Amino acid sequence: MGYLSDDHRWMGAALALASRGRGRTAPNPSVGCVIVANGRVVGRGWTQDGGRPHAEAMALRQAGAAATGATAYVTLEPCAHLSARGPACTDLLIAAGVARIVAAMGDPDPRTNGSGFARARDAGIAVVEGVREAEARGMIAGFLMRQASGRPYVTLKLATSLDGCIAMADGQSRWITGAQARAHTHLERSRHEAILVGRGTLVADAPRLDVRLAGLAARSPRRVLLSRRPEPGWEHVAAPQAIAGLAGVDHLMVEGGAGAAAAFLGADLVDRLLLYRAPVLIGRGRAALGDIGLARLADAHGRWRLADARALGSDRLEVYERG
Amino acid sequence: MGYLSDDHRWMGAALALASRGRGRTAPNPSVGCVIVANGRVVGRGWTQDGGRPHAEAMALRQAGAAATGATAYVTLEPCAHLSARGPACTDLLIAAGVARIVAAMGDPDPRTNGSGFARARDAGIAVVEGVREAEARGMIAGFLMRQASGRPYVTLKLATSLDGCIAMADGQSRWITGAQARAHTHLERSRHEAILVGRGTLVADAPRLDVRLAGLAARSPRRVLLSRRPEPGWEHVAAPQAIAGLAGVDHLMVEGGAGAAAAFLGADLVDRLLLYRAPVLIGRGRAALGDIGLARLADAHGRWRLADARALGSDRLEVYERG
Repeated sequence: MGYLSDDHRWMGAALALASRGRGRTAPNPSVGCVIVANGRVVGRGWTQDGGRPHAEAMALRQAGAAATGATAYVTLEPCAHLSARGPACTDLLIAAGVARIVAAMGDPDPRTNGSGFARARDAGIAVVEGVREAEARGMIAGFLMRQASGRPYVTLKLATSLDGCIAMADGQSRWITGAQARAHTHLERSRHEAILVGRGTLVADAPRLDVRLAGLAARSPRRVLLSRRPEPGWEHVAAPQAIAGLAGVDHLMVEGGAGAAAAFLGADLVDRLLLYRAPVLIGRGRAALGDIGLARLADAHGRWRLADARALGSDRLEVYERG
Repeated sequence: MGYLSDDHRWMGAALALASRGRGRTAPNPSVGCVIVANGRVVGRGWTQDGGRPHAEAMALRQAGAAATGATAYVTLEPCAHLSARGPACTDLLIAAGVARIVAAMGDPDPRTNGSGFARARDAGIAVVEGVREAEARGMIAGFLMRQASGRPYVTLKLATSLDGCIAMADGQSRWITGAQARAHTHLERSRHEAILVGRGTLVADAPRLDVRLAGLAARSPRRVLLSRRPEPGWEHVAAPQAIAGLAGVDHLMVEGGAGAAAAFLGADLVDRLLLYRAPVLIGRGRAALGDIGLARLADAHGRWRLADARALGSDRLEVYERG
């Protein structure tokens, strides 16, 4: 069966559902599922907090008998392995009698890794793979990074003036960016299991690092300190490389300050850059970054690719990813 | 007679012609003129180097008898004053028998200032004013600044990394931005009568500040040094305020370094900001700006408004104007 434009559209709905779980489902990936029968949605699901139930289980429960002969749109290959925490989604889909599975990508988890698709095909289900795969990969960047490299996916957030300052020379930094940019930062926080700052920021700002958005307050992430010594009320890592040991953290946001940001960049442990910029000039202020160990200017090029740019009030947000 | 969408379009052609003279016509404004008869262009003109002939004179000479009954599109009110350097354009338009004049804006020069329009109307010519005025004002920003404030219109150019550095700590700065961004800077140079740098940049870079674009080499601007003492081969000003004395300079581009940029910003003598940014991070490099005298962060807000943003290869250009 071929690739239909309806498939593209329904997958968009599944991706939107998947986004609900971002930063909440570790160690599982955040998956979305839409079950469509005769052009109508009969079931919707997304991975629940902590990773269970899976998206497909939730959507199938909602669909009930309507799943028979329907198409299931999933942002990731259905799992094929039995678990003490629940049945394999591939088996649930077969048992429900779906006629067709459209998936954005295969699951790299070695317990599935193609066997979900294979078992569904063996049961007579038509399977389409690779619909909107790039978006699906972005949705589970943390899961993929854990699978591939054993560490969280790291986003570095910087909020600067046009001349790259994060504060005035005397430390004034409230506020450089405006209310809309700060609200967007809070939304980003809600999509991360943990946020990290350096000790300088802890001392200077005593940041709460919580999510101050209506309805999302319960999504405040864990707080991690980059420091040689522990701090009461904080998890801590002594070096950027130690983030691999943060259990249950697939997405880490580094929020400051210049020293922590430089330490992660210097260790090549930044995957994504959120750059909020206000239309102000400060002049001889505090630089956004400390020493990142750059020896030659030529080495700085080719590392970052602009992935998104938008206005947030009078500020601008640019998102860069590894080039 | 009303405002027609054709008028908008033809004025665009006149504006494009006006742009040819930018940075070349001081002390006169750079004006464009298109003469249209029966939906066809019969004459095109723009202010020539040094300010004469005027756009209308050039276009009318090209149109000849075809100007009778035609519409003249002009980016600025036709001059009404006699000059030793040539006749008044209003008189030329009347003599040629044009039926209609569409102008983007009035001429603030006290010798004209509405009397060009009035005399044309007295002669039975239909006059429409204010078509694409904002663009026309931008085109002659230097002339307007001279009229209003007795000084050139100042553009500050900065080329930085994402973290706001103009060089590495050891001085390496070639190159942060790429070939397309640098070519755009050369185009901007060609639109300025003069370019200014500080002594630090002179010593470090010995910049040529010429226009290295095919066909535009003859448009290299005058070179001005911000310095307490003169320098052979350079004009010089001892302080930003002294730019008022640069005869024949209506548009000045400040190209560096951090000290000169800060001096102009501190004196509130920057009208437009050209910000070229490369997708690189440098970390603990040289800041784009020295001390601009900012006392409180709140004072930095509301000064700059984004006027344009575009990609130049992998770099980004943002243009800010006074907010």
